[in-house]
Amino acid sequence: MWHGRFSQDPSARLRAYGESVSFDQRLALADITGSKAHARGLRRAGILNDAEFAAIVSGLDGVAQDIREGHFVWREELEDVHMNIESALTERIGAAGAKLHTARSRNDQVALDLRLWLREEVAGLLVSVRRLQLALLGLAERAEGAIMPGYTHLQRAQPVPAAHHVLAYIEMLERDAGRLTDAAQRANVMPLGSGAIAGSTIVLDRVEIAKELGFPAVSQNSMDAVADRDFACEFLSTCAIAGMHLSRLCEDTVLWASSEFGFLRLSDAHTTGSSLMPQKKIPTLPSWLEGKPDGFTAICCHC
Amino acid sequence: MWHGRFSQDPSARLRAYGESVSFDQRLALADITGSKAHARGLRRAGILNDAEFAAIVSGLDGVAQDIREGHFVWREELEDVHMNIESALTERIGAAGAKLHTARSRNDQVALDLRLWLREEVAGLLVSVRRLQLALLGLAERAEGAIMPGYTHLQRAQPVPAAHHVLAYIEMLERDAGRLTDAAQRANVMPLGSGAIAGSTIVLDRVEIAKELGFPAVSQNSMDAVADRDFACEFLSTCAIAGMHLSRLCEDTVLWASSEFGFLRLSDAHTTGSSLMPQKKIPTLPSWLEGKPDGFTAICCHC
Amino acid sequence: MWHGRFSQDPSARLRAYGESVSFDQRLALADITGSKAHARGLRRAGILNDAEFAAIVSGLDGVAQDIREGHFVWREELEDVHMNIESALTERIGAAGAKLHTARSRNDQVALDLRLWLREEVAGLLVSVRRLQLALLGLAERAEGAIMPGYTHLQRAQPVPAAHHVLAYIEMLERDAGRLTDAAQRANVMPLGSGAIAGSTIVLDRVEIAKELGFPAVSQNSMDAVADRDFACEFLSTCAIAGMHLSRLCEDTVLWASSEFGFLRLSDAHTTGSSLMPQKKIPTLPSWLEGKPDGFTAICCHC
Amino acid sequence: MWHGRFSQDPSARLRAYGESVSFDQRLALADITGSKAHARGLRRAGILNDAEFAAIVSGLDGVAQDIREGHFVWREELEDVHMNIESALTERIGAAGAKLHTARSRNDQVALDLRLWLREEVAGLLVSVRRLQLALLGLAERAEGAIMPGYTHLQRAQPVPAAHHVLAYIEMLERDAGRLTDAAQRANVMPLGSGAIAGSTIVLDRVEIAKELGFPAVSQNSMDAVADRDFACEFLSTCAIAGMHLSRLCEDTVLWASSEFGFLRLSDAHTTGSSLMPQKKIPTLPSWLEGKPDGFTAICCHC
Repeated sequence: MWHGRFSQDPSARLRAYGESVSFDQRLALADITGSKAHARGLRRAGILNDAEFAAIVSGLDGVAQDIREGHFVWREELEDVHMNIESALTERIGAAGAKLHTARSRNDQVALDLRLWLREEVAGLLVSVRRLQLALLGLAERAEGAIMPGYTHLQRAQPVPAAHHVLAYIEMLERDAGRLTDAAQRANVMPLGSGAIAGSTIVLDRVEIAKELGFPAVSQNSMDAVADRDFACEFLSTCAIAGMHLSRLCEDTVLWASSEFGFLRLSDAHTTGSSLMPQKKIPTLPSWLEGKPDGFTAICCHC
Repeated sequence: MWHGRFSQDPSARLRAYGESVSFDQRLALADITGSKAHARGLRRAGILNDAEFAAIVSGLDGVAQDIREGHFVWREELEDVHMNIESALTERIGAAGAKLHTARSRNDQVALDLRLWLREEVAGLLVSVRRLQLALLGLAERAEGAIMPGYTHLQRAQPVPAAHHVLAYIEMLERDAGRLTDAAQRANVMPLGSGAIAGSTIVLDRVEIAKELGFPAVSQNSMDAVADRDFACEFLSTCAIAGMHLSRLCEDTVLWASSEFGFLRLSDAHTTGSSLMPQKKIPTLPSWLEGKPDGFTAICCHC
Repeated sequence: MWHGRFSQDPSARLRAYGESVSFDQRLALADITGSKAHARGLRRAGILNDAEFAAIVSGLDGVAQDIREGHFVWREELEDVHMNIESALTERIGAAGAKLHTARSRNDQVALDLRLWLREEVAGLLVSVRRLQLALLGLAERAEGAIMPGYTHLQRAQPVPAAHHVLAYIEMLERDAGRLTDAAQRANVMPLGSGAIAGSTIVLDRVEIAKELGFPAVSQNSMDAVADRDFACEFLSTCAIAGMHLSRLCEDTVLWASSEFGFLRLSDAHTTGSSLMPQKKIPTLPSWLEGKPDGFTAICCHC
Repeated sequence: MWHGRFSQDPSARLRAYGESVSFDQRLALADITGSKAHARGLRRAGILNDAEFAAIVSGLDGVAQDIREGHFVWREELEDVHMNIESALTERIGAAGAKLHTARSRNDQVALDLRLWLREEVAGLLVSVRRLQLALLGLAERAEGAIMPGYTHLQRAQPVPAAHHVLAYIEMLERDAGRLTDAAQRANVMPLGSGAIAGSTIVLDRVEIAKELGFPAVSQNSMDAVADRDFACEFLSTCAIAGMHLSRLCEDTVLWASSEFGFLRLSDAHTTGSSLMPQKKIPTLPSWLEGKPDGFTAICCHC
């Protein structure tokens, strides 16, 4: 798009360095959702007529279907997910496709896509967290009455109900859910209209676009809105803390499933083995994450 | 305390490795606040009589005063801040001092202290954030009407009001304030009563203790409560994101104060110099952080 | 391989969690190189006869060719790169293929593969480093006589030859080359023969295998050899330091190519542009990395 | 020093932000060693006469003695270790003290100090690494004949000699020693003469100064020499890898000292206890680091 003034084509190496479609294609459906809302904004602002708007929406729906069904051909020379979709749209519906980029820059577009994508991801993660909490609750119920050693520094310290130990993980996950929710809420701000950094001369009804996309707020400053990736940092930090909790759970599982501790027996469906050492059962993370407390065929006490 | 059964003293190296008082003494006042609330709980539970309780409170107040006035002698061989204070208390008031540790472990005690301390720190940081936002607002007001280049990739892109650029930082700081507040709220849970890991046989009125210490909630699981340092991770991550914003602000200041950009002149009070190169003025962070927009004697435009 | 004793198949989720072939397939050619040397060792130890050895080598060569030509079908249910290749080998040559795993575990096999792979990568990186140093040298030569401001804190400090500034990067890269070489040398140790953790009852001539694979040394302790990933940490840390140098170089390029500094003009082949802002030229990393000093059409001085 | 041109004093906050003496005072003796060598260089260059040189050397020796004996008063308003020492020198010997800063900047001075300091630290760490290796060797010898389970995923896999497990740590530490040595060697370059960034008009015999300070090489580029902190990054990364090995050793110690594993009994001198749980012995790092294999009163096998 920007080659008009340039007398040389970009080098192959520059192209390989600059492309992002190999990894940002996961934003594709968010990008299309955002583009449809933007098109509606352009129609309201009188930039698109009804026919153009209808063509864009149905064109984008077609592209989305291709992507979902796996037919879409991603082209690295089109650099990123946005250009790939825009190019496919223009192929489908002709000149109207190009008008979609009016009053929008890739800067505010990608800011929007990332936020839409993150919102979805967090929603999925919250379901997983809740499912794991339920699995732990089930395990705690089945362990009722069992007493096990509570350890400090891996030295037996005081007896505790096995259920009490398991319930500790529900608390950790509850905080993780809180952090994920807060992170998603802080990301839940609509950046469209910020342009490259300085907004757009075409005035869009940003609040209306936000409402359509389910954003409770619009960004207040265009320079901040296009540069802000705080929400990505916050999300990653939140995942890292949750990862620490899952790691503790796995470490306990590994320890309890050892011959020496012997507090747990794991079902075959949730362990792997070894060709060299046929007696081995290797505990795995999914035995917990599948939410199957019956992965534990026994929990017992040696106090 | 725990040497009764041991036939050898700990080695000097072990002692140096194990001590924490050289750095955890900053928890001292939080530790005393927590101990006074714990003492009140012990009195309500009938463990302390009124005289013992009064002696403990006035003893702790005396220790706090010594610490505030800088007379307190920290002793490394007493390992940590808790043992140092407990030992000083017992010296002051005798046998009653030792009863303070009833129904409490250093595990729940330090969990409490850290939360009290963090709460204070966050409150202070929020004041600083607000002060910096006000300084930026003042600068934006003084820059009214000035237009400057907006950059992308440090190439001039589109003209923007200088105030708009400055206001972007207020947005970033606003999110930092939100994250700090959320982090403090998640830390705002009272862990006392969790003991080492398994609670205590002496039943304290935990809700009452929480109320006295200004905690809106009590921890639900003793094994989680003594091990949980999520709040510290979340706080640090929040500070790291805020640090990124301050770093951007400083980078802009440095760039704008260069001869080539020349958008800013800094007052002498907020720059340092060089013995070798007397013409130099080195921009510094505090010129922003002191909340003195007059640190900028000029902001101008070259568009 | 290890399912004999198990009464349930692994769950789909466990399989997805456990597979690594989607990312460890990049070890494929190293894996084949290692397997051929291992086969030679098995022949010397009398485990394979000449016909079996010949079949294995030619089978592996066929697999390698399929991989190089892009025909090889990677199967996730075969878990990792090793099992995929072993399975393809057995399909090609029958029973002899299965004997290749004698006296070897996936533990020492992957330790070998990673080292072979890293050695190749470092060799390639060293060529890139030298190429960049030459490009910088060329630029320094072309800049002969030009004087530019030397900056501290981005304030003009003292005039320096432009070539002197450019040559500073050659020094940084020289240290990077030294670190890469040291890291590769420390990785250059042959782990085969370590088995899972406890070696093998079949005695292989490890020194001979090492010689064939170009390793100057064999590992001394089987438990260490299968667990050691120090070399990966050291390599990553070395790359991170080199990345810091490249980042400084890019930052200088970006700064010098700004309107305000104006020390550099970049050729069209090494910049990208913007649809919204047709006057912009965005500097890119590859203009340096391609080793084309002519990417700089001018370097000049404003002192 | 640099306040001549400035009409306002630096603010108190700026001073607190800018000072480094509270933490860089650990460079003091390295700073004095470097200054003595620099003084010798100035005498050779004819900048100092013999009397001035003698005064400077004896003055610096006096300052060093004050520091070693703990009499030296560090003053925050003098900003850093260099200014504190220079100021104390001038107080002792008058005008000649000020001449020491000729042909030197704080930039090349601190670059020198850090390298001298790091060299010393690495030498000390290498001694500790060797001592720990010897302790492990002693333990391995005492464990001769004992067989223990070798674990993978904490599942018993194959029996191994206990000594074999212990010797694995000697291998890890050997690589650590290699990395530390390489890091120190790369830091072992003499930067003095680089000035602030552009060298000095006074020509010092840099090779002679390097020889006196035991540096095998001098830096080649002044802009690189004052900015280079690669050696600090490399050193920290090396320590982090070594820390990983020590952490593994501690984890094994903790695991083996548990009731369930029971492979180790620790002596009282190397464990701590608990007031609440008098039966507990908490394993500690120093039991290994003190190089006392007798810290282990038993190592036994349950295969």
